[in-house]
Amino acid sequence: MSILVVGSVAFDTVTTPFGQATEVLGGSATYFAAAASFFTDVRMVAVVGKDFPEEHLDFLRKRNVDLRGLQRAPGKTFRWVGEYGFDLNEARTLDTQLNVFADFAPAIPEEYRDSEVVFLANIDPDLQREVLSQVRRPALIAADTMNYWIKGKPDSLRQTLAMVDMLVINEAETRQLAGEPNLVHAAQKVRALGPRAVVIKRGEYGALLFNEGGWFSAPALPLEAIRDPTGAGDTFAGGFVGSLASSMNFADAAVRKAIILGSVMASFNVEAFSLDRLRTLTVEEIEARYRVFKRLAQFEDL
Amino acid sequence: MSILVVGSVAFDTVTTPFGQATEVLGGSATYFAAAASFFTDVRMVAVVGKDFPEEHLDFLRKRNVDLRGLQRAPGKTFRWVGEYGFDLNEARTLDTQLNVFADFAPAIPEEYRDSEVVFLANIDPDLQREVLSQVRRPALIAADTMNYWIKGKPDSLRQTLAMVDMLVINEAETRQLAGEPNLVHAAQKVRALGPRAVVIKRGEYGALLFNEGGWFSAPALPLEAIRDPTGAGDTFAGGFVGSLASSMNFADAAVRKAIILGSVMASFNVEAFSLDRLRTLTVEEIEARYRVFKRLAQFEDL
Repeated sequence: MSILVVGSVAFDTVTTPFGQATEVLGGSATYFAAAASFFTDVRMVAVVGKDFPEEHLDFLRKRNVDLRGLQRAPGKTFRWVGEYGFDLNEARTLDTQLNVFADFAPAIPEEYRDSEVVFLANIDPDLQREVLSQVRRPALIAADTMNYWIKGKPDSLRQTLAMVDMLVINEAETRQLAGEPNLVHAAQKVRALGPRAVVIKRGEYGALLFNEGGWFSAPALPLEAIRDPTGAGDTFAGGFVGSLASSMNFADAAVRKAIILGSVMASFNVEAFSLDRLRTLTVEEIEARYRVFKRLAQFEDL
Repeated sequence: MSILVVGSVAFDTVTTPFGQATEVLGGSATYFAAAASFFTDVRMVAVVGKDFPEEHLDFLRKRNVDLRGLQRAPGKTFRWVGEYGFDLNEARTLDTQLNVFADFAPAIPEEYRDSEVVFLANIDPDLQREVLSQVRRPALIAADTMNYWIKGKPDSLRQTLAMVDMLVINEAETRQLAGEPNLVHAAQKVRALGPRAVVIKRGEYGALLFNEGGWFSAPALPLEAIRDPTGAGDTFAGGFVGSLASSMNFADAAVRKAIILGSVMASFNVEAFSLDRLRTLTVEEIEARYRVFKRLAQFEDL
């Protein structure tokens, strides 16, 4: 089934210990859509400025991303400038220019309203609910959020979470959202807010799933050649939700498989700046890396 | 086969967010021996002072630990005082009194010299080699070390590592020992120093194995009821080496299984202060928790 994703499209300027990239393609919706496009059709709602070049749109179109929901507004595209030290788990934001994103009001095209799967990338929880009010009856609503909204709009975020089936969130933010240092208790509290599944991203330590079936610990591939972690969380979500949308099977075993596919997509994405690794990625490479993850986590019964 | 362990026996005074314990049984050799004793016979070489009570010896004897190598020296037993914040991965040492441990010279009893498996707990690398010079031809030598020796006695540590088959070490120390921030490259460098297997302890993130068979990522159980992380690394090593010594199978599949058993033992140990959880632990509980780990990490082929 098609996925509707609503989020940001951006120009990123990123410095890591392994190099620099200036005004390259970025944004949560972009990373998500490119990753999910390996599994199913993606419909994108976002906004870009007049400065956004056709080549980036061509890349997304070639990946079969439906861009009828992409608005082009007067002004400049959203820009983010950040850097990473050797601890690649945490970005330091040097500059954010919201530009056309400041007035973004997601308008869902009529032909997107029947979307069966919706991914609300990390945007204002008010806007996340505005999206949901414009779609009919999705079978699966997944969402991301961040510390900025947890602190700044807690009530609005709670209203959104009450409507969300699966929340993809990082570890520190899980604790912050729950106000609880123990991760098990924190995940339980977050599930009580609405999401039946909480997927906790732990960067180089993998991911944890808390759902009605219990817990699942997904390994991260130890990476020899990490160059830029930007977009890892969004490509993870793209692989995860993309896999679920392609099977429309939300049972525990399918959710576990989807988490590994999310991890696979993130593991590729960090090998190069921007989305460059996804430009050359093949389904065969994805399948081969899934087998590497399987072997990585394999152990026998006692 | 029997394991010879050489390390510390201590009185620990520990404060965590969940309580406090004063002058309770601790020490690397103690934790290791108690955990390994669930899998095989253990022979302990360590030193205690005149103040060491018979009840602690009785506990170890009841767990079938051979104490003929335990020296009782004039003076006081080694004491450690530490505390943990909500980040339970890192202890803050408030006080260390080496006492009789300051002059510890491991003397291996004649009847221990044929030990097939040796575990060198985290002590001075000079002493670690002194132990090895007193044993005949162990089939497996495993060791632990720490930042104190990496920084303070790098040359001696390298000499020891050249004689070690399997090194159990934490993540930050792996990077420090190799002088390399990338964990994959760091593990390769450490393997080049001698150990054919490097087992990296990551606390609440599990463990990673780097060996000739490739990589293995062991999950950690998300813990609802962690009370005191003291001794987690040593009980991990006890379960790990204990399992290997009981099968004397050092093939990749057996090493993976041993790492999970180490993780199981550590997951129990942190549920209570000191070694208290190990006092009541049963083989049935260990086997049941192994199955929980299996289920935690389980995912299907694509």
